[in-house]
Amino acid sequence: MKSTARPIENLINQLNKLPGIGNKTAQRLAYFILDMEEDKVNLLSNSIIDAKKNVKECSICSNFTDLDPCAICTDDKRDNSIICVVEYPKDVEAMERANCFNGLYHVLHGVIAPTKGIGPAELKIRELLRRLESDDIKEIIIATNPTVEGDTTALYLSKLISPLGVKTTRIGYGLPVGGDLEYYDEVTISTALENRRELK
Amino acid sequence: MKSTARPIENLINQLNKLPGIGNKTAQRLAYFILDMEEDKVNLLSNSIIDAKKNVKECSICSNFTDLDPCAICTDDKRDNSIICVVEYPKDVEAMERANCFNGLYHVLHGVIAPTKGIGPAELKIRELLRRLESDDIKEIIIATNPTVEGDTTALYLSKLISPLGVKTTRIGYGLPVGGDLEYYDEVTISTALENRRELK
Repeated sequence: MKSTARPIENLINQLNKLPGIGNKTAQRLAYFILDMEEDKVNLLSNSIIDAKKNVKECSICSNFTDLDPCAICTDDKRDNSIICVVEYPKDVEAMERANCFNGLYHVLHGVIAPTKGIGPAELKIRELLRRLESDDIKEIIIATNPTVEGDTTALYLSKLISPLGVKTTRIGYGLPVGGDLEYYDEVTISTALENRRELK
Repeated sequence: MKSTARPIENLINQLNKLPGIGNKTAQRLAYFILDMEEDKVNLLSNSIIDAKKNVKECSICSNFTDLDPCAICTDDKRDNSIICVVEYPKDVEAMERANCFNGLYHVLHGVIAPTKGIGPAELKIRELLRRLESDDIKEIIIATNPTVEGDTTALYLSKLISPLGVKTTRIGYGLPVGGDLEYYDEVTISTALENRRELK
């Protein structure tokens, strides 16, 4: 398009590569950025570079952090006898937001997905087993997602961990709170049914 | 939240300031950026800085451009006797995409909106009048949006321009092509009715 200046076109293309940002949204964002004050644009741009440069994986739990070990691993108010295993750093965020877990985490950075060529070796499983060598760990809660890959990974981990004498559990799956049977798919409903508990 | 490293939190906050990017989307984008390769992150960040630094307003039409005058104003294949007046640079994009107009543009960078303290002096109206001083201009097409502010601005401009002997028109408004009466609001429908044309 003749009307688009090259730097605008370039910015639109770069934004377009982000997930969920289509061409239309990329255009809107680009024009918004052009209308922002210069120092705010610099803040935005620097925050991108700064995050990429200063955020590393924690050498203990593999979560993203700017300090190593991370603030959770070094927090002595947390229960270090229990580790919740999640797929990605954003899952740690979600758990922390829910504010219902006071143990430690372990981030796998993925799930076992043979179709995508991702086997156990690609995940932070060795690092998890190393943590289990201390006697402190009493329970591993596997909180991978209820997908084929998440289920496979949970099964794989439990087979690996149970023989070590560490209790291995998996978080419950079923209807979300506030959910309505009418709107959920049959797999969610059958999972909810399987996960039924006796009322006392 | 303790689990968020400061640079991640900062990146999420910066992204959250963009239009249509809520907290949830900002988080998803931030974690995506952290997973991108470093050189791709640099490309993204540089495209932001580069666009802000190198994109200026064309001294003739006030559209965003990296060359001054812009590629449209200097294109001798375009009809320089007709100017289409739009609110924002993105409207020039939209017109060019439609590929149905071969004249020049003039970007107001806003609309008259007394409630927001935006009067004619804040818009590129002086610059438009200056262009009309040449005899070349035969027609001004006002393509502001069909909103209260867009209508006000169109009326203001036509009162200013008509006495100069330049033909002033406004683009048609009504039902969009492919639209269905059933789904449009009464204002669109009454506008479409007012804008009816005789079939011959």
